[in-house]
Amino acid sequence: MTVRSDLPTAIVGAGGLIGQHFARLLGDHPFFSAPLLVGSARSRGERYRDAWQLPEPLPGSLEDRRLEVATPGRLARRGVRVVFSALPSGTAAGFETDCRRRGLHVFSNAADHRMDPDVPLLVPEVNAAHLTGLGPRPRGRGLLVTNPNCTAAGLVLALAPVWALLRPVRVHVATFQALSGAGLPGVPSLAVVDNVLPYIWGEEEKVDAESNRLLGTVRSGRVRPAGVRFLAQCARVAVRDGHLEAVTVEARRRPTHRALESAWRGFDPLVSRGLPTAPSPPVELRPEADRPQPLRDRWAGSPARARGMAATVGRVRWEPPFLRFFVLSHNAVRGGAGGSVLNAELAAAEGLLGEEFRP
Amino acid sequence: MTVRSDLPTAIVGAGGLIGQHFARLLGDHPFFSAPLLVGSARSRGERYRDAWQLPEPLPGSLEDRRLEVATPGRLARRGVRVVFSALPSGTAAGFETDCRRRGLHVFSNAADHRMDPDVPLLVPEVNAAHLTGLGPRPRGRGLLVTNPNCTAAGLVLALAPVWALLRPVRVHVATFQALSGAGLPGVPSLAVVDNVLPYIWGEEEKVDAESNRLLGTVRSGRVRPAGVRFLAQCARVAVRDGHLEAVTVEARRRPTHRALESAWRGFDPLVSRGLPTAPSPPVELRPEADRPQPLRDRWAGSPARARGMAATVGRVRWEPPFLRFFVLSHNAVRGGAGGSVLNAELAAAEGLLGEEFRP
Amino acid sequence: MTVRSDLPTAIVGAGGLIGQHFARLLGDHPFFSAPLLVGSARSRGERYRDAWQLPEPLPGSLEDRRLEVATPGRLARRGVRVVFSALPSGTAAGFETDCRRRGLHVFSNAADHRMDPDVPLLVPEVNAAHLTGLGPRPRGRGLLVTNPNCTAAGLVLALAPVWALLRPVRVHVATFQALSGAGLPGVPSLAVVDNVLPYIWGEEEKVDAESNRLLGTVRSGRVRPAGVRFLAQCARVAVRDGHLEAVTVEARRRPTHRALESAWRGFDPLVSRGLPTAPSPPVELRPEADRPQPLRDRWAGSPARARGMAATVGRVRWEPPFLRFFVLSHNAVRGGAGGSVLNAELAAAEGLLGEEFRP
Amino acid sequence: MTVRSDLPTAIVGAGGLIGQHFARLLGDHPFFSAPLLVGSARSRGERYRDAWQLPEPLPGSLEDRRLEVATPGRLARRGVRVVFSALPSGTAAGFETDCRRRGLHVFSNAADHRMDPDVPLLVPEVNAAHLTGLGPRPRGRGLLVTNPNCTAAGLVLALAPVWALLRPVRVHVATFQALSGAGLPGVPSLAVVDNVLPYIWGEEEKVDAESNRLLGTVRSGRVRPAGVRFLAQCARVAVRDGHLEAVTVEARRRPTHRALESAWRGFDPLVSRGLPTAPSPPVELRPEADRPQPLRDRWAGSPARARGMAATVGRVRWEPPFLRFFVLSHNAVRGGAGGSVLNAELAAAEGLLGEEFRP
Repeated sequence: MTVRSDLPTAIVGAGGLIGQHFARLLGDHPFFSAPLLVGSARSRGERYRDAWQLPEPLPGSLEDRRLEVATPGRLARRGVRVVFSALPSGTAAGFETDCRRRGLHVFSNAADHRMDPDVPLLVPEVNAAHLTGLGPRPRGRGLLVTNPNCTAAGLVLALAPVWALLRPVRVHVATFQALSGAGLPGVPSLAVVDNVLPYIWGEEEKVDAESNRLLGTVRSGRVRPAGVRFLAQCARVAVRDGHLEAVTVEARRRPTHRALESAWRGFDPLVSRGLPTAPSPPVELRPEADRPQPLRDRWAGSPARARGMAATVGRVRWEPPFLRFFVLSHNAVRGGAGGSVLNAELAAAEGLLGEEFRP
Repeated sequence: MTVRSDLPTAIVGAGGLIGQHFARLLGDHPFFSAPLLVGSARSRGERYRDAWQLPEPLPGSLEDRRLEVATPGRLARRGVRVVFSALPSGTAAGFETDCRRRGLHVFSNAADHRMDPDVPLLVPEVNAAHLTGLGPRPRGRGLLVTNPNCTAAGLVLALAPVWALLRPVRVHVATFQALSGAGLPGVPSLAVVDNVLPYIWGEEEKVDAESNRLLGTVRSGRVRPAGVRFLAQCARVAVRDGHLEAVTVEARRRPTHRALESAWRGFDPLVSRGLPTAPSPPVELRPEADRPQPLRDRWAGSPARARGMAATVGRVRWEPPFLRFFVLSHNAVRGGAGGSVLNAELAAAEGLLGEEFRP
Repeated sequence: MTVRSDLPTAIVGAGGLIGQHFARLLGDHPFFSAPLLVGSARSRGERYRDAWQLPEPLPGSLEDRRLEVATPGRLARRGVRVVFSALPSGTAAGFETDCRRRGLHVFSNAADHRMDPDVPLLVPEVNAAHLTGLGPRPRGRGLLVTNPNCTAAGLVLALAPVWALLRPVRVHVATFQALSGAGLPGVPSLAVVDNVLPYIWGEEEKVDAESNRLLGTVRSGRVRPAGVRFLAQCARVAVRDGHLEAVTVEARRRPTHRALESAWRGFDPLVSRGLPTAPSPPVELRPEADRPQPLRDRWAGSPARARGMAATVGRVRWEPPFLRFFVLSHNAVRGGAGGSVLNAELAAAEGLLGEEFRP
Repeated sequence: MTVRSDLPTAIVGAGGLIGQHFARLLGDHPFFSAPLLVGSARSRGERYRDAWQLPEPLPGSLEDRRLEVATPGRLARRGVRVVFSALPSGTAAGFETDCRRRGLHVFSNAADHRMDPDVPLLVPEVNAAHLTGLGPRPRGRGLLVTNPNCTAAGLVLALAPVWALLRPVRVHVATFQALSGAGLPGVPSLAVVDNVLPYIWGEEEKVDAESNRLLGTVRSGRVRPAGVRFLAQCARVAVRDGHLEAVTVEARRRPTHRALESAWRGFDPLVSRGLPTAPSPPVELRPEADRPQPLRDRWAGSPARARGMAATVGRVRWEPPFLRFFVLSHNAVRGGAGGSVLNAELAAAEGLLGEEFRP
C-alpha cells in the first residue's frame, strides 16, 4: 500500500510560536496535507506571512493562507481528520475533548490532558507501546495523543537508552531553558538580558510527573509510572532555542562506561519504521569536552526533515553510583511541535488514522 | 588602640579583572593605604585610568597611578607589608612563596596554594578558625591566606548556617557562571551570545575539594575535610557578573523548615568584629518565587563597603532528605577580590599583620 | 532663606519603569518630601518593595509604602504640591491638565503636552529661559513642565555647547536605543536577543520636533523653533540602559577643532545654581577611541546625586562642514525621570513652586 | 560546452571564521572541487570537524579532511588552480602576490590588495565590468580578485539600483555590525554583552574608499572612483551575524518614490548568467515597518545556495533630496566568503579560469 499524502489537517493555535513550528513541519509533509491555520479571534483573516514570527522560513505553501477561526464542529464539517494542537493550556482541554468526540484525531502539545489515564503521553522512541496500550478507543471517537513538556522530552530521550542498565534510584536535573519555551510574547527582554531567572511556573512538577509517566510501563491498559523521583531545578537563560539540562542519575546498577556508551550509540528503535520526522539516531553522543551547546546542537537530527529532533548528550561522567551528563534538545521542535508530528506519524504507521493513510 | 589606616599594600596582577576589583575595594580602605599597582611587563607605565576595564568607577586616589613591574624583593624594599594577589594560577605560586619568605603577608585569589596544608583557605564567616589554627608561623615569614574559587565561595556561605542541622550526605550543584569568572579577555562573544557553555576547566574538581576544605575542621594544626561529596556540573552563561548555583543537599538529619530558615536568618558570626568589608547579614534569604537573580542580587550586601559580599539564597524547598535552593553571589567580589580583602581585615583584627595595625 | 525639604510630592505612574526612577531620585531629596506613590488600579495596595523592578536599590524610605490610586482632586486634597508624571502618553494628557487646573505643579515625562505652546519643554542646561518665558501663568493654575523624549535629551545636551559655533544646516542622527526606553514589559526577549529592531514608533518625528523646540528661542512668549532639520533613524539594541547616538552635523561655520572642544569642556551653565541633580559638567568629553559606550558611560555625572545625568560625547571628528561624534546618555535618567527632577529643581530655584520653597 | 566541476581549489586561512564560510560554500560546489584546507602552523594536522566553529553544519565532504600548511609553491605543485583567501590582512599581501605570480587564480577577502589599481574590487551585480576592464593580464600570471569590506558589500548592493536615478551628492551611513565581523576569537564577551562599541578600526575609511571604487567606472583600464563622500560611523552590537546599516543619501535628482521602488525590484543583472551563488533578486525590498532585522533577514537569498547573499532593504523614506533606508546583509557571506565565491563563479563564466572551466 502506498502512502497517501493528503490526510486533511488543521493546526489550532497556529499564530503562536509552537503553532508556527507545526506549520514549518507540516507545510510540505509526505503524510499530511497543508494544514488549515486556526488562530485566535484577534488574528482572524491575517495573512500567515504577516503573522510569521520565526526566523526560520515559512513554507511557501502556507505564505498566502490566512488565519481563520474555527470550532471543532466546523473543522469536522470541513473534512479535517487530524488536528495539531498548539493551544495554550487551559484553553486546550475543552477544545481537544470536543474534537475527539467528533472523531477528529488530536495530537497535542498542551499540558491539559497529558496525565489523563486514557491519553498516551508519547515519545515514540521511548514508549511507543503506550500509543496502543491504553485500552480500546470508543467507536467514533478520535485519538488524543500528547507530547510531553519541553524539558521532559529531551530528558527521557537521554535516559531511555541507559534506563534498564542503570535502574535509577533518583534523578537530579538542573535546567538552562531557552526563551522560546515561554512562547510569544514570552519573557520581557529587561527580565533576562544579563540575567538568569531561577523559576519557571509548574515546570519542576511537570518534569517529575511526565518523566515518570513516559518511562513507565503499561499494565492492563494503564500506565504504571517509573517510580523514580526527579528532583528538578528549572531556570531560564538568555538563549533563543534549546533546553540544556545538567543531569545526575543515582543508579542501582553498575554497568561499565563502555556499556553505557554502547547503549546510547545503539539506540534507534524507530530506524525501520520510515517515519519522516524521526531522527536517526535519536540521541547523538558528543565526545568533546564542551558539548552539547544550545547554539551548536539545537538543530541536531538527520535526515533534514528531522532537524531539531535529536537529543545531544555530552560530558558523560560515570562514577558509580552517579552518572552525570548534559543533554540538549530543541524545546520547540523535539519538545514541542516536532514531538507531536512524530507522534502523528507513528499513529499513521500503526494504522490508527485510518487504513487508507497507513504509509 | 586606634586603627592605623596606612598599612602599605600592593596589588599584584592589578591590570586584570580581579586586580581591578581589588583596586576598587582598596582605593579608600580604612585599614590599608592606597596600593601600589603591579602589572605585567606589557602594561608597565600605563596610567591606571587607561587600563581600567570595569564599568564600576575607579577610585579617584588611583586614577593617576601607573602600573609598574616589581619583584617580591622590590616590594619588600619599598616597604610594602601586605600583598593582594590577583596573579593567574601558575604564575602565582612562586611569586607568593617568595613574598612570604621575605616577610610580606599575602592574601591571594590564586588557586596555586589553596590546598597547601599550612595555608588557610578562608571564608571568614565559615571557617575563621582556620586562620590561626594551622600551626605556628616560622619567624620572619609572612602570612599566606587564600580565598576560594568563585563558585565554592557562595556555596559554602549558603551551606554553613545549615550544615550542622542537616549533616549532609552529599551535595549536588549545577552552576550558571558569569562571564567575568573567566577574567579578561575571557570568553569570546561568539562563543556565548545565544548560548551556554557546559564546561569550565577544572571548576567541578575545585568545587568539591575546596568546599570540603572550607567546611572541614581543624585538628592538630591540620584541616580535616568535611568528607561530603560535591557533585558539580558547571556551565557558563551570558551574564556579566554573579554566579548562580542550583543546589540539592541530601541530608542525614530532618530539621524543620523553620529551623533552617532561622539558621540562615540568624547567621552573622562576624557581626561584632568591625570588619569594614563584612556584610551583615552575610546570607540574605529571599522569599520571592523568582530570586535570587544575577542582575538583581549580585550587589547584595550592606553596609555600602560590603556591596557584592553577601550571598543570596532563595527558592528553598525542603522535602527531607532533600533540601533544594538557589544561591547567588558576586563571583569577582565575594568569590574574588572581596574575599581576600575580608580575609586581610580578619587577619588585621586578629593582630596577625602586626600589633600596631590591629583595629 | 533656607531650603525647605518638605515640599509634598506624588509620583503618578509609580509602578512603571520611569516611575521607579522617579522614586529612586526622590526617596531622599533635599527639596522634596518622600512622594506618594500613585499606580494603576491593578497595582492598588501593593507594597512598593514588591512592585520594584529596577536592579538599582529602592530607597529605604519608600520600601514599605504602598501603591495607591488617586485622582488629581484627591492629590490636591491630600496636600500634594508637586506631581511627577510618569503616565503613559495618552493617559497623561487629561490627568496632567486636571492637576494643573487644581494648582498642582506638574513635571512630566509624558509626550502629550510637550509641544503645547504654553508648556515649557525643558532641559535646564539648554533652554532654561523657556521655563519663565512662555507668558504669565493664570492665577491659581499650576506649572506644567515637560522633559523631552529620551533620544532628544542627550542629543540637545551634546549640541547646545557647539550650536552657535556651528550654526548647523542639518543634523543626521542614527540611534542605538536601550531596552528600558520601551518601559515594562517592553520589548519581548525573542524579538531582540541576537537582533536589532530598526524601528521605534514615533521616535524619529519626536527627535526632529522636540530638538527644534529645545534649541529654539523665545520670542514674545512663544518658542520659535531652531529651524534645523533632524534626520533620524532610530533602532533598538539589546542593551539595558543608555541610548547611543551617531551624530553628523552639517555646519555653516568653520570653527577650529580646539574651539569646539573648548566649548564642550567649558559648558556648565547651571554650575552656580545649587541644583542637587544637576551634573557638573553636564557634558563629558572622552578622548578614547572607543567611547562613549552604554555599559561604561550611562551612569556618567557627578556629584553622586547626578549619576546618569551627564551626556558623554566621544569620537569627535571635524571635517568641515561635517562634525561627527557619538553621544550617550541614560535614557531613563537624563532622558526620563532625572530630567523632570532637574526641571523641578530649577523651578524651585526660580521661586516658581512658592517662595517658601526657593532654595 | 558543459561545466566541469573539478577545478582544483584551496582555501587559505581555512581555520578562521571566513575560511569556514568558504568551506561551507565550497564543500559541494558545481564548479569547484572540494578544497584543500590550508591553516596556520598551529592548527596543522587538525581534523576539520574538530576545528569547526560555525553553528552551521560542516559539509560532509570535508569532515575528515585535515588542516595543512602550504606555501603558494606547494599549492601550485599540487595542481591547485584557484585559491580562496581568508588570510588576515597583512599576511595576505605577500601570499596572494606569490600565488598570482605562479599562475594561481586568487579570490580574496583580505583588504591588502583591494585598492591596487590592477586588482578588481568586485561585487558582480554592481561592477562586473571591473573584472575584465583593468587591462590585460600578464601571460602566466593568475587573476587576483577581491571582495569588499563587509559593510561596503551590502551598502553598494543597496545603492547600485538607485544610483543613477539619484546621482548622490553624499551618503551618510551608521552601522550596527555583527560580532562575526571581528573573526575568531574576536570581541570579548565582557566588552559587548549589554553594550555597544562605537568604534571599529579602519572601518569607516574602508567604507568610503571601497564604496567609491565599487561604484566607480572603468576608463582606459583604470577605475575612476564615484567621487561621492561616504560619511560612516561604525559600531559593533551584540548580534552574531548580519550588518545593519542606517543610510541617508543626499541626492541631486528627484525621481518618484515609485521609480526608486521599481529600480530596486527590477534589479537582477546576473539573472541569466547561471551563477550558482548569485541570489535572485540580489536586493530584497521589505514593506514592513520594522525590517530588515539581522535575525530574520541575514539568510535572505534564493536559491538555497545563495542564502545569505541577498541584501535586504527596508524602511525606505524619500523626502527629496534625502533618501533614508536601512540595509542588512550577512557580513560573513555576502560581505565575506560568499562574495569571493560569486566573484570566482563570474570569472569562470567569463572564461577567465581557463576555457575548459567555462560553465
